[in-house]
Amino acid sequence: MAPAGGPRAKKGILERLENGEVVVGDGSFLLTLEKRGYVKAGLWTPEVVVEYPNAVRQLHMEFLRAGSNVMQTFTFSASEDNKESKWEDVNAAACDLAREVAGKGDALVAGGICQTSAYTHHKDEARVKQLFQRQLDVFARKNVDFLIAEYFEHAEEAVWAVEVLKALGKPVAATMCIGPDGDMHGVSPGECAVKLVKAGAAIVGVNCRFGPSTSLKTMKLMKAGLAAGLEAHLMVQSLGFHTPDCGKGGFVDLPEYPSGLEPRAATRWDIQKYAREAYKLGVRYIGGCCGFEPYHIRAIAEELAPERGFWPPASDKHGSWGSSFNMHTKPWIRARARREYWENLLPASGRPFCPSLSQPDV
Amino acid sequence: MAPAGGPRAKKGILERLENGEVVVGDGSFLLTLEKRGYVKAGLWTPEVVVEYPNAVRQLHMEFLRAGSNVMQTFTFSASEDNKESKWEDVNAAACDLAREVAGKGDALVAGGICQTSAYTHHKDEARVKQLFQRQLDVFARKNVDFLIAEYFEHAEEAVWAVEVLKALGKPVAATMCIGPDGDMHGVSPGECAVKLVKAGAAIVGVNCRFGPSTSLKTMKLMKAGLAAGLEAHLMVQSLGFHTPDCGKGGFVDLPEYPSGLEPRAATRWDIQKYAREAYKLGVRYIGGCCGFEPYHIRAIAEELAPERGFWPPASDKHGSWGSSFNMHTKPWIRARARREYWENLLPASGRPFCPSLSQPDV
Amino acid sequence: MAPAGGPRAKKGILERLENGEVVVGDGSFLLTLEKRGYVKAGLWTPEVVVEYPNAVRQLHMEFLRAGSNVMQTFTFSASEDNKESKWEDVNAAACDLAREVAGKGDALVAGGICQTSAYTHHKDEARVKQLFQRQLDVFARKNVDFLIAEYFEHAEEAVWAVEVLKALGKPVAATMCIGPDGDMHGVSPGECAVKLVKAGAAIVGVNCRFGPSTSLKTMKLMKAGLAAGLEAHLMVQSLGFHTPDCGKGGFVDLPEYPSGLEPRAATRWDIQKYAREAYKLGVRYIGGCCGFEPYHIRAIAEELAPERGFWPPASDKHGSWGSSFNMHTKPWIRARARREYWENLLPASGRPFCPSLSQPDV
Amino acid sequence: MAPAGGPRAKKGILERLENGEVVVGDGSFLLTLEKRGYVKAGLWTPEVVVEYPNAVRQLHMEFLRAGSNVMQTFTFSASEDNKESKWEDVNAAACDLAREVAGKGDALVAGGICQTSAYTHHKDEARVKQLFQRQLDVFARKNVDFLIAEYFEHAEEAVWAVEVLKALGKPVAATMCIGPDGDMHGVSPGECAVKLVKAGAAIVGVNCRFGPSTSLKTMKLMKAGLAAGLEAHLMVQSLGFHTPDCGKGGFVDLPEYPSGLEPRAATRWDIQKYAREAYKLGVRYIGGCCGFEPYHIRAIAEELAPERGFWPPASDKHGSWGSSFNMHTKPWIRARARREYWENLLPASGRPFCPSLSQPDV
Repeated sequence: MAPAGGPRAKKGILERLENGEVVVGDGSFLLTLEKRGYVKAGLWTPEVVVEYPNAVRQLHMEFLRAGSNVMQTFTFSASEDNKESKWEDVNAAACDLAREVAGKGDALVAGGICQTSAYTHHKDEARVKQLFQRQLDVFARKNVDFLIAEYFEHAEEAVWAVEVLKALGKPVAATMCIGPDGDMHGVSPGECAVKLVKAGAAIVGVNCRFGPSTSLKTMKLMKAGLAAGLEAHLMVQSLGFHTPDCGKGGFVDLPEYPSGLEPRAATRWDIQKYAREAYKLGVRYIGGCCGFEPYHIRAIAEELAPERGFWPPASDKHGSWGSSFNMHTKPWIRARARREYWENLLPASGRPFCPSLSQPDV
Repeated sequence: MAPAGGPRAKKGILERLENGEVVVGDGSFLLTLEKRGYVKAGLWTPEVVVEYPNAVRQLHMEFLRAGSNVMQTFTFSASEDNKESKWEDVNAAACDLAREVAGKGDALVAGGICQTSAYTHHKDEARVKQLFQRQLDVFARKNVDFLIAEYFEHAEEAVWAVEVLKALGKPVAATMCIGPDGDMHGVSPGECAVKLVKAGAAIVGVNCRFGPSTSLKTMKLMKAGLAAGLEAHLMVQSLGFHTPDCGKGGFVDLPEYPSGLEPRAATRWDIQKYAREAYKLGVRYIGGCCGFEPYHIRAIAEELAPERGFWPPASDKHGSWGSSFNMHTKPWIRARARREYWENLLPASGRPFCPSLSQPDV
Repeated sequence: MAPAGGPRAKKGILERLENGEVVVGDGSFLLTLEKRGYVKAGLWTPEVVVEYPNAVRQLHMEFLRAGSNVMQTFTFSASEDNKESKWEDVNAAACDLAREVAGKGDALVAGGICQTSAYTHHKDEARVKQLFQRQLDVFARKNVDFLIAEYFEHAEEAVWAVEVLKALGKPVAATMCIGPDGDMHGVSPGECAVKLVKAGAAIVGVNCRFGPSTSLKTMKLMKAGLAAGLEAHLMVQSLGFHTPDCGKGGFVDLPEYPSGLEPRAATRWDIQKYAREAYKLGVRYIGGCCGFEPYHIRAIAEELAPERGFWPPASDKHGSWGSSFNMHTKPWIRARARREYWENLLPASGRPFCPSLSQPDV
Repeated sequence: MAPAGGPRAKKGILERLENGEVVVGDGSFLLTLEKRGYVKAGLWTPEVVVEYPNAVRQLHMEFLRAGSNVMQTFTFSASEDNKESKWEDVNAAACDLAREVAGKGDALVAGGICQTSAYTHHKDEARVKQLFQRQLDVFARKNVDFLIAEYFEHAEEAVWAVEVLKALGKPVAATMCIGPDGDMHGVSPGECAVKLVKAGAAIVGVNCRFGPSTSLKTMKLMKAGLAAGLEAHLMVQSLGFHTPDCGKGGFVDLPEYPSGLEPRAATRWDIQKYAREAYKLGVRYIGGCCGFEPYHIRAIAEELAPERGFWPPASDKHGSWGSSFNMHTKPWIRARARREYWENLLPASGRPFCPSLSQPDV
């Protein structure tokens, strides 16, 4: 699977995007490992990296097989409470795991940082930047391929993150967890994109908090904001859940968050539509966030296989658009072996006492 | 985790049930490994056991941590096409994997066989029984702890399976994939249960094809059928999907099968209700089938922790009933840190263009 | 419209049914006049007959035009509280109104009585029968064409009603407001039907409390109960609301009763299906109860127009199956001018925060 | 009910609005009379006025009793095909009927005109205005109290209508059948309002095509458009159906239009919310259009009874907020005798195979 020259010979993230290639991101770690029994909802901390490394390795492997070109390090978010060196050990181990699996395929390692509670509490730029710097030190030592500043609710903090990260001299991507209404200070998606690019991000977009179609609406606004002269690659990593009803805060405000989201889970066919629409919009870095299971990532890679010219490894275990049912003994199941069937299916919830939409808590 | 005396000192399945203990089964292999990228929908064959043993080992580990007391071997179903020795190698490897993981906790290994296409084609008792016998030979050689005849649509074939399996002298459980309307020949659940017990099954029940509440309706009818003097332990391993709308054939006839079932997926809270109701009904072997992820198995173990006196290992990564949200910064999320909240939640599908129920294809 | 010989020349109810003719009943008075502003929900008393006779006359006319062959008198139900003569005046006026409108078309007048609160309170046969007798005296004086004992929850009281009514020597129909689970004492639909026929009813069936498809399920059970030798004509007058979720008590136990039932209202196409299925089942007296508006009655008459050989008067203001849209300027509305379109339409509720089904209060 | 001085002493429409009084409009004629059997869907022509005047008189009476202060004439819309004098006779008769019923209470007579197919075909101002003039001539002769130009998709044509109508010297109201996206030429609601006021309308707003909450969104935009100096009274007459899913063209594009709209029908409680929100927004002329039955109009009058100081006549047959259930024998129905119950009810559709929302046809 790996090119002959080994990992060092891999093309970098910007080289790929500048070539017009599609970069397939990876998917959900926190929620997926919560369901597998290794991460605690509410805390969402990644000690599993040292406690149960096989569980993390296995999930990385599944995303790699599904077609991911990026292994994001499963690292602690910055926190001044993490003063002990423990989190540094975890983060270093996370980098090693990501590198190990990336080496088995055509994937890069990305070191990720996200918003801090410090920002919310005191908005002290120096202190917040110091937290980012400490995380960056580990990524520098472990020589990740590029950096992602992700899951920021405030453009201001995201800009600080980009300013810290860019100092390493590696490509920086920046994604915010905002919807079409913009960030928590009322900065619109277009303005956010402009700020991030001006701060030094080469790739901008959104991740988490909002479902596939809502995330693409936000991307349209970001793209429009950048139209006036600024150059950046576009990136989207939406939830694997449908959230047409969520407010400005996204899915965390929905009553189903985080342990009743099942009926909102996207099908693989939903994700193929998402990948196609993202592509049409000009987004070339396409992945997922919470709720994106390996088969959702595979759906991106399969939808865009015609453009890319190849299929992901895990497609050898997948009959695209149900084609593997075409020999089924039951004729009504054979009838499902076609794209039109699955594209038009409106799947029932099996829950007649439940509504279709919820009122967000705020 | 393992008792001091090692695996050999473990209590057998019947000893546990006769003591009145709850035995927690395991969950979904085929559908779960399909989503992880290792099993092909339509074929549903378990070569992954030899191709990617780590993926199977990891899933066994997740179920063990979630509280499973049984590791079912992930083995090929019988087929006269499997004449080459390949399937025997796979099945032997599957037994080894199950035994390896079972040894890390308080779990037994169960060898499972299921219905044959041979039965459907010619109903030749001798040929069908020979297929069962060949599978049994591997289980005998690998010294599994007990045997499960599962996923039978016809009581007659299930009886044949029990007759073959019991010859090994190990306990035999038998579950059918039927709903309240009975088997495909019109044999009622009560009659099926009687036939299976008379044939030699010590444990009877249902698995797969129907969701939690439908499966429990069938169990009530089985229990009623056995009321007249016959003794057997009861076992249920339902789908992890809600299927109030499916007909006699179960979920395979629903238009969403198998790649659009997402909105039907049970929450952990749904499964706690299922575990409680199964327990009240007198069922003591409680597990799951397709769609049962590790966290669903953990939900069974947590719901019945008061009766059993202990929690499953994975509960150290779980705040039961959302208790881990009680320190959340947002008050409306803290308000979710209580049983009443999740018990009463009616989760929305986020899909206003989709119905609640589907018409089965037959 | 009226045959040359005038009302006296009309065929009687039994003559029609014995000829194999379809008799179209009428629809909802209480709920319809409540919405028009003339009847108070909760009390449901018909003083409107004397207070606003035009409102009642108009509704009778609408049902007549829609195709009803029966004008049911809009009369007070029996109550020992109604000792003053007021109710007798109302009931006499109601008979006159029904007769007046019936005279304008091919309709008969039916005097209706229903269950008493006296039965619930003391179950004193003599007192209950006396109440029925007092109502019957008015009907006798006003010379109604036949009698209907309707809306009985208990077969025992319905039998008493039939016993009183048959003494007049006119045909007696008897319908109960029960579902497939039978009456409030646990008497099955089949047994109820047998009791009513043995008591002297020439026509038996169900009315009110349950929606179209549920009412037909009950009719199947009644028909099966009568299969063993007893002869009776079958009659169904279901709700105009869908109630798949209601329990034994019917729609009054649903949380939407009586002022939130709107989203459950049947379309005209639903009623055409109901009429067709009732006809196939052998039911020949087909009408409606609460929620049946004039256009629902017309839908019965239109669906069965091929069998009957004529259309109801109001069909001159109706393009059957949307045929009147076939000249619409918008092509997508012209596309609705066909039976297939409306038969297959699954109408949305426009209410994504509402569920599909409710839990009954008991 | 009528003030001592007789109809001539009634306050005019502007006098009422300038006093800050609430004017309750009337409701649905076309769809309501279609269901009663007197108007043909698709044609929607009001010959019933001469064919079955009692049916029209009765509906006017119901709205009057429900609290309407306006009787809109049930008149033909303009059409060059209506060259024969027939439509003039119908329109004159319609004026007489409206006047007759208005005389029985505190209601005014409004002559209404709406958009023409002529506009769509050739946009010839002179010809279109001539059509309006011919209708106006009848209204002048019959001395209606004020005029309404309603159901216009294009601001341009609505302006022409206002220009014709104002020549009579009576107050002119103008409502468009547009949603928040504006008219069919892309003129925004705010701009439409400005044009109508500048043309001479004293009252502006929306009617038909969109449900209660959507119509109020449009009203907000109209109000905002008028904020810059222009003075006008606001008026809303929404559908009695929920249409959150309809596109720019409104409910006619929904697949349920016009004969499958039942599940979308508003409850009386929905309309109380609508009346309250309209009032809060500053709208003082509040009525309804298609789907508004008499009890919906009553709901407006009851919701605003505290502000107005009186209840509509039909409230003597209504226990507001279910208060008439407070003596019911069943405790769970007594529990429905309170505002909180009905305000919070989320009524089920009873249709689990139907979605919540539809895709409009365009």
